[in-house]
Amino acid sequence: MEENRPTLAVIGGTGKQGRGLAYRWARAGYQVYVGSREAARARKTAAAIRARLADRAADVHGLDNLSAARQADVVVLSVPYAAHRATLETLRPALQGKILVDVTVPLRPPRVSRVWLPPHGSAALEAQDLLGPDVAVVDAFQNIAADVLWQDAPVEADVLVAGRGKANRHRVMALVEAAGFRAWDAGPLENTVAVEALTSVLIYMNKAYHAAHLGVRVVGR
Amino acid sequence: MEENRPTLAVIGGTGKQGRGLAYRWARAGYQVYVGSREAARARKTAAAIRARLADRAADVHGLDNLSAARQADVVVLSVPYAAHRATLETLRPALQGKILVDVTVPLRPPRVSRVWLPPHGSAALEAQDLLGPDVAVVDAFQNIAADVLWQDAPVEADVLVAGRGKANRHRVMALVEAAGFRAWDAGPLENTVAVEALTSVLIYMNKAYHAAHLGVRVVGR
Repeated sequence: MEENRPTLAVIGGTGKQGRGLAYRWARAGYQVYVGSREAARARKTAAAIRARLADRAADVHGLDNLSAARQADVVVLSVPYAAHRATLETLRPALQGKILVDVTVPLRPPRVSRVWLPPHGSAALEAQDLLGPDVAVVDAFQNIAADVLWQDAPVEADVLVAGRGKANRHRVMALVEAAGFRAWDAGPLENTVAVEALTSVLIYMNKAYHAAHLGVRVVGR
Repeated sequence: MEENRPTLAVIGGTGKQGRGLAYRWARAGYQVYVGSREAARARKTAAAIRARLADRAADVHGLDNLSAARQADVVVLSVPYAAHRATLETLRPALQGKILVDVTVPLRPPRVSRVWLPPHGSAALEAQDLLGPDVAVVDAFQNIAADVLWQDAPVEADVLVAGRGKANRHRVMALVEAAGFRAWDAGPLENTVAVEALTSVLIYMNKAYHAAHLGVRVVGR
């Protein structure tokens, strides 16, 4: 049923983060389109995921980014911040009427362990402004280390879900949970500023504490 | 020894948060000056803390804010954001050469569960700009619910310490630990944007999940 099991596209799905997310949703039984600028690379990643999930007949296929976005009910964007705007401009027509799960963090290399605020305050606010009112931009996974996504070990860190519209956030929270994480409704689109900026703090702490996968868990309930 | 046990002032020390912090440091054996706009109110709060710690001869006294700041090696600022700038302008001469632990969160009532970025990006960046290079502004305690500070129950939530200069952050981390929390070096002054903005997310989540004391714990080490 589409309501419960939207078809997903992971744009930038051949990167470490995108591949890990596509893997987790395929593992959970979702139909997933891996997107890449080059369809051939996307097909290769999709094949690797299918091979890994050989026992489950995983429904995951590779396409170019725009075709992937067109096929999907919910589109997940996992590209470096430097490619964020250009990618969204290309995808804009294919995103109308859909939820865009933005996984982007505004980092300005080489100073990635220092919070840098983009002009709109967050990548998600920028995306919402660019895509217009018929797209709902929702942030998730910003604070999860990319390489744990490809692993099967349990993760202690939680996922904060902030973005446009409570119902949309709850749809994204269901996807987060299907991927194996605790999801929290972190509030409206303005709160993406906190969710994204926290990533630079985690990058700083990974360095300062010689760690690799620091995250945050919501406590005190 | 001053190096290990700085004398502290808690400006705005009669509020819920300031009072709780003063209590915790007095409990740990620090000399603490509670500051208030009215010295009489500060003396009353100090007396309440001494009464609570009767068995330990707590070294805690009340003064007007400026006198408290003058007496202290490290000054802790716990005032509403609306009073932040004016308070700092008053205290500026008394802060030179010292660490200012800024506990302020830029909230814009009534929309306190929505991230609002002040012109500098954070209250701490604003304070540093106003106070000049001979003061080191360091953020702490933004993400701890004020009323747990006055309680003795263990708290799961951690304290992120971000601000100017690693040595200063480590001095503040020692104070955070003396107050009974795990402290993390969360990086340079720019990272106060994330630490402060996260508070609005926690306020949102407290409402959304009918909780009161949500916080975050760093995990994945």
